Amino acid sequence: MVPRNTPLKPAWIEDPPAAGSYRALFKWGDPARVKHPDQRLVRLLQGQLGLSEAEWRRPAAGAMDAIASIPPSRLAAAHVQALTAIVEAPNASTASMERLRFGVGQSAEEIWQLRAGELPPAADLVLHPRHREDVIRIVAYCHRENIPIYPCGGGSSVTRGLSPVRGGVSLVLRTHMHRVLRFSETNQTITVEPGLDGPHYEALLNDAPRRLHARRAYTGGHFPQSFEFSTVGGWVAAMGAGQESTYYGDMADLVVALEMVSPSGVLRTREVPASATGPCLKALATGSEGAYGVLVAVTLKIFRHQPANRRRFSFIFGDWDRAVTAVREISQGEFGRPSVLRLSDPEETDTALTLYGVSGTPLERLIRLRGLRPGRRCLLLGRTDGEKGLARHVHRCIRRVCRRQGGVYLGGYPVRRWEHGRFSDPYMREDLNDFGIFIDTLETSVSWEHLAPVYQGVRGYIKSRPRTLCLTHASHFYPQGTNLYFIFIGRMGSLEAFRGFHGGIVERIRTCGGTLSHHHGVGRLLAPWMPAYLGPAGMGVLRALKQHFDPRNIMNPGGTLGLD
Amino acid sequence: MVPRNTPLKPAWIEDPPAAGSYRALFKWGDPARVKHPDQRLVRLLQGQLGLSEAEWRRPAAGAMDAIASIPPSRLAAAHVQALTAIVEAPNASTASMERLRFGVGQSAEEIWQLRAGELPPAADLVLHPRHREDVIRIVAYCHRENIPIYPCGGGSSVTRGLSPVRGGVSLVLRTHMHRVLRFSETNQTITVEPGLDGPHYEALLNDAPRRLHARRAYTGGHFPQSFEFSTVGGWVAAMGAGQESTYYGDMADLVVALEMVSPSGVLRTREVPASATGPCLKALATGSEGAYGVLVAVTLKIFRHQPANRRRFSFIFGDWDRAVTAVREISQGEFGRPSVLRLSDPEETDTALTLYGVSGTPLERLIRLRGLRPGRRCLLLGRTDGEKGLARHVHRCIRRVCRRQGGVYLGGYPVRRWEHGRFSDPYMREDLNDFGIFIDTLETSVSWEHLAPVYQGVRGYIKSRPRTLCLTHASHFYPQGTNLYFIFIGRMGSLEAFRGFHGGIVERIRTCGGTLSHHHGVGRLLAPWMPAYLGPAGMGVLRALKQHFDPRNIMNPGGTLGLD
Repeated sequence: MVPRNTPLKPAWIEDPPAAGSYRALFKWGDPARVKHPDQRLVRLLQGQLGLSEAEWRRPAAGAMDAIASIPPSRLAAAHVQALTAIVEAPNASTASMERLRFGVGQSAEEIWQLRAGELPPAADLVLHPRHREDVIRIVAYCHRENIPIYPCGGGSSVTRGLSPVRGGVSLVLRTHMHRVLRFSETNQTITVEPGLDGPHYEALLNDAPRRLHARRAYTGGHFPQSFEFSTVGGWVAAMGAGQESTYYGDMADLVVALEMVSPSGVLRTREVPASATGPCLKALATGSEGAYGVLVAVTLKIFRHQPANRRRFSFIFGDWDRAVTAVREISQGEFGRPSVLRLSDPEETDTALTLYGVSGTPLERLIRLRGLRPGRRCLLLGRTDGEKGLARHVHRCIRRVCRRQGGVYLGGYPVRRWEHGRFSDPYMREDLNDFGIFIDTLETSVSWEHLAPVYQGVRGYIKSRPRTLCLTHASHFYPQGTNLYFIFIGRMGSLEAFRGFHGGIVERIRTCGGTLSHHHGVGRLLAPWMPAYLGPAGMGVLRALKQHFDPRNIMNPGGTLGLD
Repeated sequence: MVPRNTPLKPAWIEDPPAAGSYRALFKWGDPARVKHPDQRLVRLLQGQLGLSEAEWRRPAAGAMDAIASIPPSRLAAAHVQALTAIVEAPNASTASMERLRFGVGQSAEEIWQLRAGELPPAADLVLHPRHREDVIRIVAYCHRENIPIYPCGGGSSVTRGLSPVRGGVSLVLRTHMHRVLRFSETNQTITVEPGLDGPHYEALLNDAPRRLHARRAYTGGHFPQSFEFSTVGGWVAAMGAGQESTYYGDMADLVVALEMVSPSGVLRTREVPASATGPCLKALATGSEGAYGVLVAVTLKIFRHQPANRRRFSFIFGDWDRAVTAVREISQGEFGRPSVLRLSDPEETDTALTLYGVSGTPLERLIRLRGLRPGRRCLLLGRTDGEKGLARHVHRCIRRVCRRQGGVYLGGYPVRRWEHGRFSDPYMREDLNDFGIFIDTLETSVSWEHLAPVYQGVRGYIKSRPRTLCLTHASHFYPQGTNLYFIFIGRMGSLEAFRGFHGGIVERIRTCGGTLSHHHGVGRLLAPWMPAYLGPAGMGVLRALKQHFDPRNIMNPGGTLGLD
């Protein structure tokens, strides 16, 4: 047992990464911001992973190293000149760091490669298009000249989706293309350029009366963990789902229309609520991950912003099975849906109770009194939204369902604690990595029938690795099933060993009956499993569309979606 | 003014159509069933269309004529033999009437052609596959031998979607392929073969405790007007929407997974609630109208069957604008959604008040007292479903919204009247046609912004034709818009004149900003407008998929979706 009273101050790195360092490429979010694991988490990790106090005082070597040299751009000067002429000089760059920067995402593999001093693929040219017309001209030029294009939104891809593995152009959409193109309060839609990021998008809608001359305030209803550093275009291209998707829907549900520039032309779909005019065209572009074209406009559903109606709840259940019974009933009960619903498995629950400060409080005494034991008990937290009476009704029904399964009501406090860290937790990753601890996630979608085999199979595989934490939750609910989100934490041997372990998890997800991804997308990370997952007929369709949109394979080439 | 007290008995045809007659091909539904327009409707039509009493006593010539001669099958004997061998003898036919029967749908054009003694295209061979394996072998054989295949579900297409314009095979799925393949109460899904019809599908689910060993009763939630004579496969292939879609969703929302046999192979998608593994494959098959392949299995969402929770309501508003404001608020209010919601325009309202027996009752006095005038007032009717408290809450909120727009509550009676005729009204079409009155419908989907221009533009066009009724309603609601359903009734000049008039309506829908179809599909009827509607990029995608799935163009060839 680790002594609880001795304060331990790990040698956290607090300086912003130096310009030109590896850290500048992989650090999450705001370069100047850090969020250290608190004392409780440090002690918990120390105990479970077996770190000595001394190890917490020695950050891993190389964490702040400068990049020695970056190979020069290989793009012919004439191409650089022609493409630069399209966007105008300040919006094109062949500077070394720039060419790396927009091609690095946030996958564990990329981060560990950078920490090991391995250079990631570099683009030859970075372009910051100013508007749709720039994109059309760039795509046409690159198609003619056979130059790869790698679209980049917020840069938060965890699937190596941005990686310019064949050089060419990194096309950065967030620099200029973040305008509102159309707002219709009547239709409850907004059309924006793809480079608009989460906080600006949401703030604009929340402030609609002032900034959009609307009668009401609105919300986009889309809050992925990457919210602060992801863009609307990225949400659509990678088919994301936010933490409130149970009420608002996944990105696939939220897209009303879109415009995509591909080498074969510009596909623009209509802003209509529904239609029966052949297969749904917007569905082909949603989830195409830049492999078919570049999104230049996206029309999304918006919702009334009514935070005053919100109700929070949390429950703790005796075991996973009863908790799953409760969330299934919540999903299928037809009494309306909660916005947030998040069920933690026993290991995540015990961690959360520690981190959310429940341990040692009257809440913990209550939990003990009810005989809900560590290692078995499961925490459910959530929120209801919408019109006031609906939010109240859904809240009331959820309480009824949970009580029927023996759930003990813990009130709204744990939800507020979770809300507090919901977007900033990724900052802690650098701190853990600095001490040789990896933390990574994989997620999958499961029908209710597959929930148990996937949960047990994948968790069993992860826990078969010694001294490895596996925190699991389900956080996106549908009448037909849910997702499972596995967070695994351990000490790093080699990158090769990590890859093997990671691949083993993906394979276990697949063979147990989960989808390859619920909301992270495929990118290059999961591409090797796509043929086995979709089968030849499914892959054949994706390839036929690729051939149609991008016959010369210039759009995000080199593995995306398993296409080449 | 037509005297109201003289009973008028038109010379209705009551005999079932003779075998081998034109009427046997076009008559709606059960051959033995008729449903005559009641006295009120007859009088209303007489007045508005200017029929004399004498005309009601003389049915149009040729209504019961026998078909003189049908050209023989042109398919080589070897092919007939090989295909017959696949399904086994009783399941293949080259009999003349059979070859016509499964290629005739329910479009006004087909019906008037048949009434005029024009023969529709005939298949060369009718096959009734027994199961998936038969379909796979038939498609493979026809692909190799270049023989067209025309899939037929319930035969209720109103878009000439079944028409074997190039001969070949009519593939009838309803004869044998109506089995349940899998039922999962846990997932709330059912997987069925495509030929299962509406009543059997719904009865099975309603009776799930007995017939599927379920704990509860379920509903499919899909009730198109063609419910009694349409199939699950047809719903998916033509992307239907039912009369309760506002709550349960359109067919595109209800499909969880499917299996489609195409010349290029068998595409089977997974039963998962969501995924981010590239563009959604099931979306490509949904709405493909048999042009990409034959559906052999469809997995649909099911819902709890809780008719005891149902609440009915109806309101009458002073004018269309206030009624539209009310239904938009109902759609966007986020208090939950009604299942049925149906707003009639003034012309349909006045007709409905007559037909539903409100005229002359205390309800009518109430309406008059409130100053709601004929020619302006609009009827809204609907129903709430789901869990008891939700159904009650939605009902309460709807009443509040409607009152705010001056709506006068009329109770549940008009809804029950509407429910009574919801599936049987199509039977009246033959009666009207027999007296030279055409009745046809076109429907479109509109964003809220486009509702007014499409309503006014299309109605204006229809009403510019003398003595033509135009009854319009919106009956499928979304936060982003609704549909408009135009019923037009008049006296028939020539088929050519009808075609011109009909085409003019479609063109007006398109230019005013409506979709070509909301839930009837495209078929061959609307195909000529598809290139202008989708544009070259959109058509290019549909064609690329066609080329992939069906490179020799054997699947429902000859115009479907505007593909050839």
